[in-house]
Amino acid sequence: MMNEIPYKIYLDENEMPTQWYNVRADMKKKPAPLLNPGTGQPMTEEELRHVFCDELVKQELNETDRFIDIPEEIRNFYKMYRPSPLVRAYCLEKKLDTPAKIYYKFEGNNTSGSHKLNSAIAQAYYAKKQGLKGVTTETGAGQWGTALSMACSYLDLDCKVYMVKVSYEQKPFRREVMRTYGASVTPSPSNTTNVGRKILAEFPDTNGSLGCAISEAVEAATSQEGYRYVLGSVLSQVLLHQSVIGMESKIALDKYGIKPDMIIGCAGGGSNLGGLISPFMGEKLRGEADYRFIAVEPASCPSLTRGVYAYDFCDTGKVCPLQKMYTLGSGFMPSPNHAGGLRYHGMSAILSELYDQKLMEAVAVEQTSVFEAAEIFARSEGILPAPESSHAIRVAIDEALKCKETGEEKTILFGLTGTGYFDMYAYAAYNDGKMTDYVPTDEELQRSFDSLPKV
Amino acid sequence: MMNEIPYKIYLDENEMPTQWYNVRADMKKKPAPLLNPGTGQPMTEEELRHVFCDELVKQELNETDRFIDIPEEIRNFYKMYRPSPLVRAYCLEKKLDTPAKIYYKFEGNNTSGSHKLNSAIAQAYYAKKQGLKGVTTETGAGQWGTALSMACSYLDLDCKVYMVKVSYEQKPFRREVMRTYGASVTPSPSNTTNVGRKILAEFPDTNGSLGCAISEAVEAATSQEGYRYVLGSVLSQVLLHQSVIGMESKIALDKYGIKPDMIIGCAGGGSNLGGLISPFMGEKLRGEADYRFIAVEPASCPSLTRGVYAYDFCDTGKVCPLQKMYTLGSGFMPSPNHAGGLRYHGMSAILSELYDQKLMEAVAVEQTSVFEAAEIFARSEGILPAPESSHAIRVAIDEALKCKETGEEKTILFGLTGTGYFDMYAYAAYNDGKMTDYVPTDEELQRSFDSLPKV
Repeated sequence: MMNEIPYKIYLDENEMPTQWYNVRADMKKKPAPLLNPGTGQPMTEEELRHVFCDELVKQELNETDRFIDIPEEIRNFYKMYRPSPLVRAYCLEKKLDTPAKIYYKFEGNNTSGSHKLNSAIAQAYYAKKQGLKGVTTETGAGQWGTALSMACSYLDLDCKVYMVKVSYEQKPFRREVMRTYGASVTPSPSNTTNVGRKILAEFPDTNGSLGCAISEAVEAATSQEGYRYVLGSVLSQVLLHQSVIGMESKIALDKYGIKPDMIIGCAGGGSNLGGLISPFMGEKLRGEADYRFIAVEPASCPSLTRGVYAYDFCDTGKVCPLQKMYTLGSGFMPSPNHAGGLRYHGMSAILSELYDQKLMEAVAVEQTSVFEAAEIFARSEGILPAPESSHAIRVAIDEALKCKETGEEKTILFGLTGTGYFDMYAYAAYNDGKMTDYVPTDEELQRSFDSLPKV
Repeated sequence: MMNEIPYKIYLDENEMPTQWYNVRADMKKKPAPLLNPGTGQPMTEEELRHVFCDELVKQELNETDRFIDIPEEIRNFYKMYRPSPLVRAYCLEKKLDTPAKIYYKFEGNNTSGSHKLNSAIAQAYYAKKQGLKGVTTETGAGQWGTALSMACSYLDLDCKVYMVKVSYEQKPFRREVMRTYGASVTPSPSNTTNVGRKILAEFPDTNGSLGCAISEAVEAATSQEGYRYVLGSVLSQVLLHQSVIGMESKIALDKYGIKPDMIIGCAGGGSNLGGLISPFMGEKLRGEADYRFIAVEPASCPSLTRGVYAYDFCDTGKVCPLQKMYTLGSGFMPSPNHAGGLRYHGMSAILSELYDQKLMEAVAVEQTSVFEAAEIFARSEGILPAPESSHAIRVAIDEALKCKETGEEKTILFGLTGTGYFDMYAYAAYNDGKMTDYVPTDEELQRSFDSLPKV
């Protein structure tokens, strides 16, 4: 092939971003503030400091600074696994026989297997800088927990992970990765917290849930000296850290004079999509450029496409502040879709507000078609994608096939958040023709909406 | 940190090697020829063509051409996952507090998880070019089978993998990766071959073995029109393809004026080590430069350090040609060491001859100390290494610690062949303190040597 654009664009280390971009600074209408569930009043810096470490609270509440310096120690850590490659999907284009030009930003080439490490190191760094002993968190399938373990291990910070019991038992691989990085991994519910003991007394045979694990992690952080709780998605601080994805993408694209027509990303809590689109959205908000932004969510957990824009709890345990977001209700129980990272009832406040302002589109896709896309991608581009990432692949392929029909040479950029090496049970179900699709009924969603808090 | 040398050196695509380097061309004394086990005579091109495809037979027998062009289609495939990064292990150096400068060539950033893909695509390409329908192979833990599946999927070539039954059942993840890439994966022994049926009739409950899987794969290739057998290590053609590792490393090092004092690699069949050291060994053979080369093998399977240099079967099934190599005897049953890729009774003919000429050193290490090194590496460099690769890490760390004692600023290069994502049972055993070491007794080895073929 004779191409001026290489298969993979790697930035040099001196081209890597030195600042995160805070998209809220360019939003005329800002996301609604977090509310104290007890008082219904906006959470103060002081209140948030009981749960999160000081610098992160400042970042969470910062709506005015467009750029925030990335501390040198975090930049050095980034250099161990970043810049991530911006890949021209020549082989996929050929396979699809499309005139579209497809690019993807691949965040999976690190041991956590996803983009989660970008925020994990930032959160661990600020905890360390504050002189804390450690951090606590919850994890479902284990990607966030792994990322945090790696970051804490690097900084010599204690890391306590509450892992949903059924995952702890049935998915021992990620648990062992976390242990290898020195984290303590506790199956939740556990006897180590009041909330855990209470749940165990009531339901001794429970499999656990993410909501319960969050409650235990928050209790473990707030009841011990020198600990804070950290969260891998949803929060505005997380989108800020993840903006490194979009910043790198933009620098690489600009270097080659490429302007994407559309930018596609999967959306669970929104950290990856928010990070990827941030600097491009900034241009759109400032009227400097226009792009289509497409959030892709599972049809089984359609917070943007079928949810309501309302104040809700961020966690099923209802211990976290209230956030205004597109939500299915914190009591919504998503079906056991294989994309664990997208099984979240709500959406980041920033993305919710941008979606409400019609600056971003959203589509929902079913998982069998997602795995079909994953297989096409794996066989042409070599990389075995995570089920979550494959949601974006599905829509990127659909858009490329539309171009094939119309003959348009559109430029598509999508976020490939991670690899599927720990998701082979899901691939096995697909390979064996045993994958099922599930879409909640309107009645189910309505019942869930009825339980939204009255604010 | 203020460093002129970046954390990761990536070559530009136009700097990537366009030729493989054939170290045999620079060896004054060549490796001994393959022998026909029936006649005791050197295998002819004609005889080898029944098993391997034509171009690969030529490469296997080519001892004179120093460079062999890499076909454009293979170079394009390489661009999907290469160049692999040459990493300066700043974080490991800091952790060890050593004046040594440590570099590693990381081959794990692809879905096969190792360097195996470098030869898989070459072997699949030549099979396709010859107009064959497909290829057959065996796989133990599944890395080679995965690599071959990916290559065949890309070229639309049929891929039949015989997988040792116990791995097929107990390690379903890699099996599913292969299936996702469209390979047919058959637990061995199977009813699909004469040799499989015979073994099943005699031992219906057998777990299978690599020797048996090789025999089935060879039978499947030679008994069907349009198929050939391919092998992922040991052969000289494989070392030739793997020379891309060393070529890239050398180009990257030369670019920054770095000259390693020693080059370290793990050695099972020898494909990674051979590929990494080839161009450097060439300089040594031509008297242009000097380096220490260190092969690292498991103490449980010490072919170089405790084996004999003799003609032996390459496979336990005794269907392959005889090769002169350092061997423990084809009947040697290695203990269930977790580094499956290093559980091979022999060593590549090229490396065996270089070792016999005292151009290379070898050390054997025990697996508990290997996992200790793996953990140190994971916690400082972020990457979770494969157990095989961790053998090289162990010795690289030992050498760096010697530098700490002496104050010498030596430059160490080692090969990080792959990631350990599918080896978490092994890490779990280490994390739980349940890992055991095993070293064969002299009597065991002597018994095994007694069964060597008389040539």
